[in-house]
Amino acid sequence: MLVNNQSYRTVWMQDPSVYMINQQLLPHRFEIYESKNHLQTADAIRSMIVRGAPAIGAAGAFGIAQAASEFTGKDFDNFKIHLKKAEHVLKSARPTANDLFYGVDFVMKKTFDNFDAGIAKKYAVNAANEYADWNAELCRQIGEHGNKLIKNGQNILTHCNAGALACVDFGTALSPIRIAHYNKKNIFVYVDETRPRNQGASLTAWELAQEKINHVIIADNAAGFFMKNGKIDFVIVGADRIAMNGDVANKIGTYEKAVLAKENNIPFYVAAPLSTFDAKCSSGNEIPIEERHEDEILFMSGMDENSEIKKIRIAPIESSAKNPAFDITPAKYITGIITEKGVLNPVKEEIEGFVTG
Amino acid sequence: MLVNNQSYRTVWMQDPSVYMINQQLLPHRFEIYESKNHLQTADAIRSMIVRGAPAIGAAGAFGIAQAASEFTGKDFDNFKIHLKKAEHVLKSARPTANDLFYGVDFVMKKTFDNFDAGIAKKYAVNAANEYADWNAELCRQIGEHGNKLIKNGQNILTHCNAGALACVDFGTALSPIRIAHYNKKNIFVYVDETRPRNQGASLTAWELAQEKINHVIIADNAAGFFMKNGKIDFVIVGADRIAMNGDVANKIGTYEKAVLAKENNIPFYVAAPLSTFDAKCSSGNEIPIEERHEDEILFMSGMDENSEIKKIRIAPIESSAKNPAFDITPAKYITGIITEKGVLNPVKEEIEGFVTG
Repeated sequence: MLVNNQSYRTVWMQDPSVYMINQQLLPHRFEIYESKNHLQTADAIRSMIVRGAPAIGAAGAFGIAQAASEFTGKDFDNFKIHLKKAEHVLKSARPTANDLFYGVDFVMKKTFDNFDAGIAKKYAVNAANEYADWNAELCRQIGEHGNKLIKNGQNILTHCNAGALACVDFGTALSPIRIAHYNKKNIFVYVDETRPRNQGASLTAWELAQEKINHVIIADNAAGFFMKNGKIDFVIVGADRIAMNGDVANKIGTYEKAVLAKENNIPFYVAAPLSTFDAKCSSGNEIPIEERHEDEILFMSGMDENSEIKKIRIAPIESSAKNPAFDITPAKYITGIITEKGVLNPVKEEIEGFVTG
Repeated sequence: MLVNNQSYRTVWMQDPSVYMINQQLLPHRFEIYESKNHLQTADAIRSMIVRGAPAIGAAGAFGIAQAASEFTGKDFDNFKIHLKKAEHVLKSARPTANDLFYGVDFVMKKTFDNFDAGIAKKYAVNAANEYADWNAELCRQIGEHGNKLIKNGQNILTHCNAGALACVDFGTALSPIRIAHYNKKNIFVYVDETRPRNQGASLTAWELAQEKINHVIIADNAAGFFMKNGKIDFVIVGADRIAMNGDVANKIGTYEKAVLAKENNIPFYVAAPLSTFDAKCSSGNEIPIEERHEDEILFMSGMDENSEIKKIRIAPIESSAKNPAFDITPAKYITGIITEKGVLNPVKEEIEGFVTG
């Protein structure tokens, strides 16, 4: 992704440090956080300096590489104990993130399979880089497939941040938008601010501004208005989990946008790697919905007039809030799911063969 | 309405002062603003110490009463000039508010019709009180009719603030909720926070908390989730303007909630006095939509840890926003319009006879 006209990834390693775009400070300040060891990397995952499941997965992979790097002995058993401890610390940083487990396990396995005290470090760093590269490449492929669906001159609505910041690069929902822009298509993006955590207004808008993609932030309440008034040609969102019947769990509000898109005959696409499908879930009804802390609704964070990041209360002290973080969009509202292999259309039940682009 | 267990109106007069609940400070601080003359009343309207069309209308009516009160001469022509000046000042305070014109004209006419230098002041104050009482009574009647539609144990969703604060008392959408609560019905209210100006999270939640009506604030994005999960039995909103075919202009996001209610087979009611119907508008397509300043999206106001009201920026400095303030909900999504005369059902086209309750 471009930041200040330079190419960046969300997270990368220059042995022995892991570097991350500090997402706690966005969109107000762009700073790179340097984690000097695997413990600091675990802390960075915990404190959401890095966020977004695929990005956390890569951070976890690099964390294990750091841990391997930190080991100075020669004994395999001690090395194993050391790495197992690091595994525990890293996996505990965000206990519900599947990608984190996957990224950590990937590097652990490659390192153990190739153990040789002298060069274990090299194996580990290579494996972590391989994991990150693979992740970026998946997203790029999603972008290439999605780009074929986007016509020149279209207005696109997106919800939340399924961007490069959430991945290693490119993003999922933002990848087709990026690739369309790189292909000189003239596109315009409506960005749902995405209350309560405002990932649209903060992160998606920031990514688009950095890439110089024309966009505007709207209140989540206004998406329907723009759809009804013919201002939106295409909706694209990411996914946290997809059931085998094509029901999609994604950021709260996705279901609302999908119903409104259908009501207004606007194509509604989900962009996600195939790994997002959960073979254990036959339908969306089986996906549990995380309820997050009410303070995400009752308070807002932003930058005050002294460029300091402040938290303010926006609701009466006597009131409480309910904060479901995700919702389920039934497959019938979804035009297609854009994966790294092509576009899957759950409505037409073309499950055996992917419809490419 | 109840505030700190005492009965209040949004605006009232104790000659020569007009008193108003200072809505600039809500929900964080409850203060009564005292306007000592008609110029201060105009300023209070301008700076939104008082807001909501019916409340502004009453404030304008009281402003004219103050102006009449301030006149110490005996000559009718001079009195007329004085009152005409006050009319201009008050009507200019919020130039697009129809109710403001109506409230001011009501008191002007009654005062001129009954001019007698000695008691013009009394006529004016009486007329302003009559206007405010009439307004409160209209809202109470809307509440009585709406209450008949609300069943014991229901969960009700409302959007924005169509409450007592926007009127003189009772409110429009909140009036049936109040009356149901006064009638000991066990109800629970889901309050859309209503970005960008957050009137739900701030004003509606505050009113409900003061009345001790059980409620919870939700992100606008979550309304669809709660509807789909069977948590909402009834939706009620206010209206800014209603076309003769039953299309309703109301706060941005109303259209989204109406589509979602229909999709989930939940009754969707609009509560508004008959004066909200615009005889010049045959359909919603003719209602112009006000676009407000983008800063309402890019910034948020709230109370910081030192109990000071602060404004913070929540979006990147490079991004802009689009901010339509209202949307049009086509009549086909509306179950009924609750007026002071009964419930009008635009879908069933029972336009000649109102269906009471």
